[in-house]
Parts: sequence; C-alpha cells; structure tokens
Amino acid sequence: MVLSAVPTQYIRGVWKRLGGYLPVGLPIVSVAKGIENETLLRPTEVIREVLNQAGFGQLGRPAPLLAALSGPNIAAELARYLPATAVAACADEDLATRVQSAFSTQWFRVYTNADTVGVELAGASKNVIAIAAGILDGLAAGNNAKAALVTRGLVEISRLGAAMGAQPATFAGLAGLGDLITTCVSPEGRNRTVGERIGKGQKLADILATMDSVAEGVPTTRAVMQLAHRYRVEMPITQAVHAVLFEGKDAIDALTDLMSRDPKPESGDNTVTR
Amino acid sequence: MVLSAVPTQYIRGVWKRLGGYLPVGLPIVSVAKGIENETLLRPTEVIREVLNQAGFGQLGRPAPLLAALSGPNIAAELARYLPATAVAACADEDLATRVQSAFSTQWFRVYTNADTVGVELAGASKNVIAIAAGILDGLAAGNNAKAALVTRGLVEISRLGAAMGAQPATFAGLAGLGDLITTCVSPEGRNRTVGERIGKGQKLADILATMDSVAEGVPTTRAVMQLAHRYRVEMPITQAVHAVLFEGKDAIDALTDLMSRDPKPESGDNTVTR
Repeated sequence: MVLSAVPTQYIRGVWKRLGGYLPVGLPIVSVAKGIENETLLRPTEVIREVLNQAGFGQLGRPAPLLAALSGPNIAAELARYLPATAVAACADEDLATRVQSAFSTQWFRVYTNADTVGVELAGASKNVIAIAAGILDGLAAGNNAKAALVTRGLVEISRLGAAMGAQPATFAGLAGLGDLITTCVSPEGRNRTVGERIGKGQKLADILATMDSVAEGVPTTRAVMQLAHRYRVEMPITQAVHAVLFEGKDAIDALTDLMSRDPKPESGDNTVTR
Repeated sequence: MVLSAVPTQYIRGVWKRLGGYLPVGLPIVSVAKGIENETLLRPTEVIREVLNQAGFGQLGRPAPLLAALSGPNIAAELARYLPATAVAACADEDLATRVQSAFSTQWFRVYTNADTVGVELAGASKNVIAIAAGILDGLAAGNNAKAALVTRGLVEISRLGAAMGAQPATFAGLAGLGDLITTCVSPEGRNRTVGERIGKGQKLADILATMDSVAEGVPTTRAVMQLAHRYRVEMPITQAVHAVLFEGKDAIDALTDLMSRDPKPESGDNTVTR
C-alpha cells in the first residue's frame, strides 16, 4: 500500500515521476485535501488520470487501485498517539476494508465509506470554512459565532456535495463534520491560521510569503467557487471568503453581510437551497 | 412576552407561583435546556401542564402561548454583544415569527423552526455530550478525539430525536449541531467543566458541592438514558457518560470501550441504528 500525502498542487507532478515505477496491484491511499485548480479534479481523480496516461487501465494492464483516507486528523495529535478516527473511502468495498485494516490501531479507529466523491470533496471544502473560522478568531467574534459558522458551513458544503452526487451522510460524518470541527477549533491548523491573520488585518500575500507550509484552503477557495458556479449551488460563506481573500473585501463587512441577510425559517426548503 | 429562564428542575415550582398572574394571551418563551426527571417532560411541556392545572386551556380560557428559544448562546459572549444566532421554535408559525422579531438584533440572528420537540430535545441532550467532551479535555485527549465525539454524539441524539418525532434537520441546525459545538468547545460551559473535572479524577459529588450554578447535563444524563430505553434507541456515548457519572466507571475505561467497538462502515444503516 502506498500513501499519497503531497499537497494537491504537487500530486500531478509527483505521480508523473512515480507512475512508471508503481507495481501493478499495489493500492494507493490518498490523504490530500484539495481540488486541483483549473481541472477541478479531486486528488484520486488526478492520480488516476496521470496513471492512465502512464499506461494503467489500458492494453490489459489493470486500472490503479485508489482509495482516500480522511477525517479529523490534526497531525501533531496523531504523532502523540492521541485517539482519533478516520474514514477509508473507496467504491470497492474490498479495498476499503483492506485500507481500514492497514491503518486501524488501538488509538486510530477507521470506518469504511463507499462515497469517495463525498469524502474527498468534504476534506477539501472544509478548508474554506476553516479560513472563515480563522477570520472570526482574528476578529475575536467568539464561539457562538464560530458554532453558527460551522453549522451553516456544513450546510453549504453538503449542498455542493449533493449536487455533485455525494452522499449527505458523508458530510454529517467524520470526514465531513468531524474534520470540519477539528480544523475550525485546533490552533495548529494552517488554514484557520491564515484566516486568523486575515481577520487581524494582514494581507494574504504577506501571510503566504511567511508560511513554510502549504495552506490548501487558499487555492481550494477558488476551486470551490468554480464548482459552486458550475453546479449552480449557493454558498454564501465560501463566497464571502473568496471576496475577502481575492477581491479586497473587508472581513468585518463580509461578516456583517452574512449576519444581516433576510430573516428566514431555518429548516425545510430554505436549509437546502439558500 | 415573558422569558422563562430558570433551570429545568425549578420550572414547575416557579410557574406554580406565577401561573395565576399570567395575563391571557401573553406568550412565554422558554430558554431552559433540560428534561424534567421522573416525568421526562420538556420545559414547555412542564409549563403547559402547570398552566393547565391553573385553569388555562379550560372553561373558555385560551391555552397558553408557548415557544422555545435555543441555539449556540454562551451567555458571556451575548453580554458582550458578540454575533450569535438562535432558533425560535413553535408549531404556530405566527408566534414563532413574533418571537423572531422580538429577539432579532443586528448582532443576534434568529431563525424560525416549527419543530419544538427537536429544538428542546437537542438543547437538553447536547449537555450530555458536553460532559463527555469535558471528560476528553480532562484526559487531554485532543481535538481529533473531540471532533469525533461531537460527530458521533450528534448521530445518537438525532437518532433519539427521530424516534420521538423530531425533525433530523433540527439536529443538523443551530439548536442541534450549533449549540453542541459551542457547548463542547467553550471553556465557560458548566457541563463541559463538570466533565473536565471528572476526567481529571475528581468525584461528581465533590464537583457539584463546589459549583454555585446548576449543571443541567448531570440530571439530564439520567433523563436521556430513560428516554433511550423507552424509545429503544442505542446511545453509546450517553451510556458511557451515565456509567462514569453514576456507576463508578473509570473515564479512561469508558473511552477505551468506545474506541474499541467492532470496526464497521460509517454510513448507511449503521449510522442510523448503531
């Protein structure tokens, strides 16, 4: 089993180099959480495309075995053997179970899930909400506001997922809600940290220039906005993050706009469509 | 409009005294988050019962107008005018909208919701999960574990709600997930604090003896366990909290048991029934 753990923007390049050396039948488990800009492909889709170009799935050579592993997994805690959970996602139930067995330990509980689209999309899109959560932290807006943000953020990324054929249960599960929570509350998170510095008035270019690791949520914000347009899904929080990151909108103005939308019922059609 | 803001255990006594003075047609908005022990009634049900005994809803006197207001509303933050959201719950849409108007401000966004059962049950049962979250904090288990707990906790309280006729969307909304998140992460929360002290090895009786305010989650744990039995719903986290609080079970043993259940798929029937 091979773990593909490079940030989304490097996946294509890495697998172009590695693809030729991959033994037939060796499963690849992707743990990247992003959407490739321009192509709007998920990590396992990028790997599949590159491997197909390298001859897999053609001329009698079997298609690559691909799965995704995702969940509330802040690395610093995993490194200390603190208890955590994750989801092994693959439409092929047998492979999902193999990944589950390979990664399960006493302190790491792995569930299987057939919905690879949902698991990868949730893992990517929650980073956009995490930037918004960081912005609230930077503005010192408090936990009531952050809890509302996570709740409404989950609604809008689930809505995109449903439009793309993912299962709502995936977004309510560990790779959706679970990962969203840990990313929005853990101080270590890179995406939340970018948001916090934005909320304190720093410029995105200055923040990115001083970071020594990749904040996937920044390019993912562009990708998710494009997906929202393509699938005609309303995503007010993602739109607000996009406006703050890339259109020069003031963070307080964006928050005020979100808070002052028309009063409305919470559930029913409105939860799903607005 | 009258706000009923006393802890659940005092509601019956307070409204027995007040009931006779309540002007006909004056709406009562309950913000209590609990389940009355013994009767297993929700706060608005207790008020209705007491008022009916005082003559409302009988002999041509109109029934009392009752609504619930609930959401991620840590009081210390509301007092500082930090942005927050809530749900005004009432089957009578007109009354729900009146409550929404009465409480809405620029910094407090109120949604309406017809599902009073779900809103009150979510507000009560999330306090049990908050005690569990505190226990994890006391054990220094980390945010990955807490995110998993909140995710699985929401699954089990939603399951109870569904069995009792509540709407799943309510549990995914601000009065469910939203309130659950802020209660589990805000250091101020009384229920989370009780759990944290349990996790650090203190005894429940000693903790309660030193608290000058009510931790509703402690009696609510008994009530929710009884509801789980009555409606035949599996609630492993609630059961673990009950065992730690009232049956002398060690917190680490309870956590280990939860982490070492049989490996299983995340979604599908298992999400709903186990």
